[in-house]
Amino acid sequence: MISKKMEALVKGSSVIRAMFEEGKQMAAKYGAENVFDFSLGNPNVPAPAEVNEAIIDIVNNTDSVKLHGYMSNAGHDEVRAVIAGHLNKEYGTSYSAANIVMTVGAAGGLNVALKAILNPGDEVIAFAPYFGEYNNYVSNFDGKMVIITPDTKSFQPNLTEFEQKITNKTACVIVNSPNNPTGVIYSKETLTKMGEILEKKQKELGRTIYLITDEPYRELAYDGAEVPWVPLFYRNTIVGYSYSKSLSLPGERIGYLVIPSEADDFNDLCGACGVATRILGFVNAPSIMQLVIGKCIDAKTDISYYDRNRNTLYEGLTKLGFECQKPEGAFYLFMKSPIDDEKEFVNIAKKYNLLLVPGSTFMCSGYVRIAYCVSYETVVNSLPKFAELAKELGL
Amino acid sequence: MISKKMEALVKGSSVIRAMFEEGKQMAAKYGAENVFDFSLGNPNVPAPAEVNEAIIDIVNNTDSVKLHGYMSNAGHDEVRAVIAGHLNKEYGTSYSAANIVMTVGAAGGLNVALKAILNPGDEVIAFAPYFGEYNNYVSNFDGKMVIITPDTKSFQPNLTEFEQKITNKTACVIVNSPNNPTGVIYSKETLTKMGEILEKKQKELGRTIYLITDEPYRELAYDGAEVPWVPLFYRNTIVGYSYSKSLSLPGERIGYLVIPSEADDFNDLCGACGVATRILGFVNAPSIMQLVIGKCIDAKTDISYYDRNRNTLYEGLTKLGFECQKPEGAFYLFMKSPIDDEKEFVNIAKKYNLLLVPGSTFMCSGYVRIAYCVSYETVVNSLPKFAELAKELGL
Repeated sequence: MISKKMEALVKGSSVIRAMFEEGKQMAAKYGAENVFDFSLGNPNVPAPAEVNEAIIDIVNNTDSVKLHGYMSNAGHDEVRAVIAGHLNKEYGTSYSAANIVMTVGAAGGLNVALKAILNPGDEVIAFAPYFGEYNNYVSNFDGKMVIITPDTKSFQPNLTEFEQKITNKTACVIVNSPNNPTGVIYSKETLTKMGEILEKKQKELGRTIYLITDEPYRELAYDGAEVPWVPLFYRNTIVGYSYSKSLSLPGERIGYLVIPSEADDFNDLCGACGVATRILGFVNAPSIMQLVIGKCIDAKTDISYYDRNRNTLYEGLTKLGFECQKPEGAFYLFMKSPIDDEKEFVNIAKKYNLLLVPGSTFMCSGYVRIAYCVSYETVVNSLPKFAELAKELGL
Repeated sequence: MISKKMEALVKGSSVIRAMFEEGKQMAAKYGAENVFDFSLGNPNVPAPAEVNEAIIDIVNNTDSVKLHGYMSNAGHDEVRAVIAGHLNKEYGTSYSAANIVMTVGAAGGLNVALKAILNPGDEVIAFAPYFGEYNNYVSNFDGKMVIITPDTKSFQPNLTEFEQKITNKTACVIVNSPNNPTGVIYSKETLTKMGEILEKKQKELGRTIYLITDEPYRELAYDGAEVPWVPLFYRNTIVGYSYSKSLSLPGERIGYLVIPSEADDFNDLCGACGVATRILGFVNAPSIMQLVIGKCIDAKTDISYYDRNRNTLYEGLTKLGFECQKPEGAFYLFMKSPIDDEKEFVNIAKKYNLLLVPGSTFMCSGYVRIAYCVSYETVVNSLPKFAELAKELGL
């Protein structure tokens, strides 16, 4: 007697989450050092020392009601102000606390924004490959996902098809850069064109189209690559941020939304996001973690760790004959499956205790995602296994 | 361009939350000591010392990936096991970790359970007066609220009307005891009859009806009153618990669902709650707070504090001629409005800096809710204001 919608979801469940559970079981069976679990984006880099120092400082020096009590649904005002100031310094913007809504991670933030925006039957555009959970988030509010086919050469969004698929039912567009699963950063050129198309279509259709940008990987960019600040390219942008990856806090569920004052119906939108935070059952982002962010705004994870994994993995795999693009950001590598059916490839890889995620999970079959937010040893020790796998497949 | 559903919600917003914001503004204007804000259930008792001790211990002695990383969507297995053991000791049950899903407070838990159960158009029964947010939670999943009129003599549920209103569209029933806003504890007799009616109706209609019991106030019972464990009275019960009130942690968003193994479709229901936790954007309850609960399972808030407020307020108000029932639990007092329109009464009270919540917020007009989880001084100093109010109204 569970809901019909959920029946299908429970059966399908999340391939990634199922693998996470399978990986834990395999680790228990074969020993953790013999399982190469590249399935989940669970950072292996510890949170920066400032985080735990801040927790202890806050616990020792904050009144209990302030520390653990309710605050406004949008979060602690002073933390929101600190975040606004930080963004202003980084991007030359002029945000204040009023532009920030604290959220239960980016997943929470995206649900809040979609709840605020979507009417049943509204269309939401996303560019394949993309994080499959977007489908569920949009379905929560009876939206309809419109998928733009991937450009597998550059993995930049296909803007020609994008323009064609915008209709008067298009309520929003979701982008994610640095991208999960490709590691590609959407370029300034891409964002400029995307902004122009959206402005043009808004006028043409006489409606607002919000651009939601999911940015948990914003701080993870290699070789000095710049991650453009999307609201500078399009007025009606809502930014969803999370500290899950940038501060290695995925289990703590802390992030924020940025709603620029220039966005259409700014006041209503902010009000709706506050109410959505409450009625979806978040009520507010966890208080202690909000206060931690207020103190650790300049803390940074050591990305040289991921960078080393990235280089070792990319070089190792291409040397073995696998085909992949070098990721510019995030901690994923999107590799072409050497055989047509990438699910079959994932199964073969499992024989070597290599856990990969099929690209179809990201609406892009024929590829697999390798999450390299693992220990360096896992990367190094996986390469002989990838070599055996390459040999079996005749690479 | 926000969603139509949200437009109405933003306009109506939460009366309680609006008052919370108003109270903060009034405190800034008149001085906190001159504002008697009885609007929000934000505990004024500090969290027990064990909580902050546990946080520091955990931060100092836990690996960062374990502490701050992802775990299964249902939560840390060992914490779930500790909670199951605690319940077994209290209620003679035989739960295991598999029966527990960690949630983002009870609000998160209720949304997860409703997402798991409801099909659009399904009916959900609740007994007035009840926490108005249930309306929004049910509406999130396109359910239809069916309200049982209050029995204003005892504030126990009206079971005759209940039986009449169960239909083949009834998917679940929500109860809340100790009750917000009345402070009444649903008796064993009530629960026995309720269980019998539900069993009978399930057979008659050939469908499952889940009973969701929202229990954030379970630990707050005065004069040794017993709060019955609802699953012992009805097999298809889902318990939603929160540490917001019992450990004074409302801002931290930590609670759990109990899904007894005897419930219909137990495996599907557990699976659905796990998936719902993920796709609604909670992903998991905050990791550090889960671990804190694992260490503080026997910690208790000092309820003598609330008890003193309860007695002082009840005696003071009745002496002034106000009509109310003495609460048995929670930290709310539900007082009859001396004039028919309780919203008007609330406005008059505001002139004396007394912030009360109209009963219509709880589907029970003609009454007001007084949340006495405030300082003793607030209670004591409010009484002369209530006296002036009584005088103005000719009591």
